[in-house]
Amino acid sequence: MSETLPVTDRTRLRRKPARGSHELGVIHAILDEALVCHVAIASPENLSSDSISGGPRVLPTAFVRVDDALYLHGSAANGMFRAIAAGAEVAIAVTLLDGLVLARTAFHHSVNYRSVVIFGRGAQVHDLAVQRRALAALVDRMVPGRAEACRPPSDRELAATIVVAIPIDEASAKIRSGPPVPDDGEDAALPYWAGVIPLATVREAPIAAPDCAVAGP
Amino acid sequence: MSETLPVTDRTRLRRKPARGSHELGVIHAILDEALVCHVAIASPENLSSDSISGGPRVLPTAFVRVDDALYLHGSAANGMFRAIAAGAEVAIAVTLLDGLVLARTAFHHSVNYRSVVIFGRGAQVHDLAVQRRALAALVDRMVPGRAEACRPPSDRELAATIVVAIPIDEASAKIRSGPPVPDDGEDAALPYWAGVIPLATVREAPIAAPDCAVAGP
Repeated sequence: MSETLPVTDRTRLRRKPARGSHELGVIHAILDEALVCHVAIASPENLSSDSISGGPRVLPTAFVRVDDALYLHGSAANGMFRAIAAGAEVAIAVTLLDGLVLARTAFHHSVNYRSVVIFGRGAQVHDLAVQRRALAALVDRMVPGRAEACRPPSDRELAATIVVAIPIDEASAKIRSGPPVPDDGEDAALPYWAGVIPLATVREAPIAAPDCAVAGP
Repeated sequence: MSETLPVTDRTRLRRKPARGSHELGVIHAILDEALVCHVAIASPENLSSDSISGGPRVLPTAFVRVDDALYLHGSAANGMFRAIAAGAEVAIAVTLLDGLVLARTAFHHSVNYRSVVIFGRGAQVHDLAVQRRALAALVDRMVPGRAEACRPPSDRELAATIVVAIPIDEASAKIRSGPPVPDDGEDAALPYWAGVIPLATVREAPIAAPDCAVAGP
């Protein structure tokens, strides 16, 4: 089964639609590989008086997908996060950079990427079981099984953490992959290399905390 | 000389100010290491009628810093990019993820990162020399010296490419680095590993385009 999200005004792919997808499987796969998202809100009108300038805001933050929702967590002391928790309209981008695309012409240089944009409004999670599940999923995204290999949040810690769920029901993916578009005509004969330099995010050797005497992961 | 940007309402660091900086040297170093930024605008009110839904938008896109400005490029066919070029207020985030921070408690898990947020309005570059310099810098960001190792944009290609400059005069950096905060009291004795798993973006072996017979970079 390949479930597909309905196309809306905001998720219709106007530019290079062949690179786009509204399939949930494609969208979820990108979300599940990324560690950071960027959340945009239109203005801090929902913010408290500690942030009085208007205009758009953008927040880079960790996230995790569980089923059909994206979960963020933050502190009530963060004004923008409070606005998101209070239901401000958001646009969320998740971007994986896969490669640098070099053509013989500067004009055809590009990047390979996989990205998702989600539109909607968040809601604070008040169900403690859902909140615990989202926070465990966030920790497990860092290292699989880690949620069982650390002390779970206490009631006091849970109370200090706002968890926000954003439904993934208005979203699209966009993907560019493969070699540069072939240079045309006499450009194809130019004596320059053309191809892709793949990029990868790698995990390097763990560095134990100074006070840690337990063997590493 | 360590030049520092003035602090504004939007760039005052309210949360964990010890992690923040308004020093241009710190801000530039982060911008010069990243390949992608996320541009937020408040609403598509400046967009043409092909994008009629309101609300915030966020665009992941390549960028380059030259001197005290950040340069984006795009096509006039992209409605959101047209709005940015027309001077819509933007918030731009650049985020480098440096590590996963594992503590003995789920609560103290974190990430190491370096990020910059810039506020302002862009302006389309009409000076052809500045436009060419920005596009060359974009290509050189992918591979140093590449702008001289490919065919530069033709006049027709230049005309098809919108270049936007955004002054870097209202911006802040935020950085987390180092080990997890020490777990407190009896948590410190928990038998779980604590430390950092560094993350790095690496360039893998170049893949030549199918039609390329020139030796690689």
